[in-house]
Amino acid sequence: MSSQNSAADRKSAIQTWQQLAAIIDHTLLRPEATADQVVRLCEEAREFSFGSVMVNSARVALAVSKLQGSAVKVGAVVGFPLGASLTNVKVFEAAEAMKLGAREIDMVMNIGALKSGDHDFVLADIRAVAEAVHAQKALLKVILEAGLLTNDEKLVACETSEKAGADFVKTSTGFLGGVATVEDVALMRRAVTIGVKASGGIRNASDARKMIDAGATRLGTSSGVSIIREWRAETEGKSSAR
Amino acid sequence: MSSQNSAADRKSAIQTWQQLAAIIDHTLLRPEATADQVVRLCEEAREFSFGSVMVNSARVALAVSKLQGSAVKVGAVVGFPLGASLTNVKVFEAAEAMKLGAREIDMVMNIGALKSGDHDFVLADIRAVAEAVHAQKALLKVILEAGLLTNDEKLVACETSEKAGADFVKTSTGFLGGVATVEDVALMRRAVTIGVKASGGIRNASDARKMIDAGATRLGTSSGVSIIREWRAETEGKSSAR
Repeated sequence: MSSQNSAADRKSAIQTWQQLAAIIDHTLLRPEATADQVVRLCEEAREFSFGSVMVNSARVALAVSKLQGSAVKVGAVVGFPLGASLTNVKVFEAAEAMKLGAREIDMVMNIGALKSGDHDFVLADIRAVAEAVHAQKALLKVILEAGLLTNDEKLVACETSEKAGADFVKTSTGFLGGVATVEDVALMRRAVTIGVKASGGIRNASDARKMIDAGATRLGTSSGVSIIREWRAETEGKSSAR
Repeated sequence: MSSQNSAADRKSAIQTWQQLAAIIDHTLLRPEATADQVVRLCEEAREFSFGSVMVNSARVALAVSKLQGSAVKVGAVVGFPLGASLTNVKVFEAAEAMKLGAREIDMVMNIGALKSGDHDFVLADIRAVAEAVHAQKALLKVILEAGLLTNDEKLVACETSEKAGADFVKTSTGFLGGVATVEDVALMRRAVTIGVKASGGIRNASDARKMIDAGATRLGTSSGVSIIREWRAETEGKSSAR
């Protein structure tokens, strides 16, 4: 999806808080999240014009109903967060989420298959979901869980995801200890021509800026509101100082 | 499945290491587990006659092939570990795992629905999986993730699981920070007449003994081999001391 811009081009692409909000997946995946909390997530996404909300598949219908008439897309996670469910289960979950209105699917790669050297399985697993997702003109992001991988495995995972038809590679689930690092985002940026989503541990405007500077074209975070407020205060501070 | 035995009855039921092994679900759910590690899990389960191996759904076929001709059952997790996938996705994953030979299904309850007070949804979610599982004469365990629940919520979760047709309630996934506690096992034992599976953080023979004494009728652990070795050493030590 994204072109191979230089770091300077990418930096210049995100200046205003509205531009930043547009690349944030406003995320609530904690299993104990209540319906009320999902509703608030959607209200915040409308107010700040986040690109999407990202929820578990059982919350897609609620999120879609709350975001009707807005430009905010609904995204769902699939095979999340272990990536160790059967391929046809991942395909089924993606299809069901899209039936309910999800327009983006974040799937977890089969990490154990990658670690076992079974790259054909990893490719087929992603490709099956990619075909289902693209048949509905939705977007597919593939979560690598970089914190569990060696650098060589990260590269194989990136190449395999792109070859299988993914629209984005994504750093982390946020559930298995690893967080998005500048080094991983930069490695992924160099390895693919598709989008790169940084997710996991992005808590403030400084984290967001570092990820974008390293090459992230999308950010997944549950701290979107405070990130935007902080970014806005900083950029408005700069403007008025001029 | 289990009767309401007194603590003394229950204690007396598990004396030998073989009796202990028979109630252990020998478990490997880490997403980065390789095929070789799953094969070793199955070899250990054969050697120690564990009741079952518990794996992710993408590993069921491998485990079934490695355990052919043995009494060890294969169990699969469903909607794991968040419990926040759509009900029909949980049913589909259970059905696919059973087609491949899984005889036990450990599903995660919809925790967010419980926290939202939507007990009807929690009931329907479990019942749908229970019907699919029982149609195949398999067993259903419902994971409450007790570490995320208040005591009142644990009680509702127990009653709802039993009403929905579960064969066991289970303490924890082992992935979201909580571990099996003696207090939770005792609470669950009092709340249900079905089985109680303690899982999460059971690392040695002393942990296993405490859980059984508190009322657990099944143990889920990735430390089964060292638990049995330790238990065997202790009980053999006692015999020779007599």
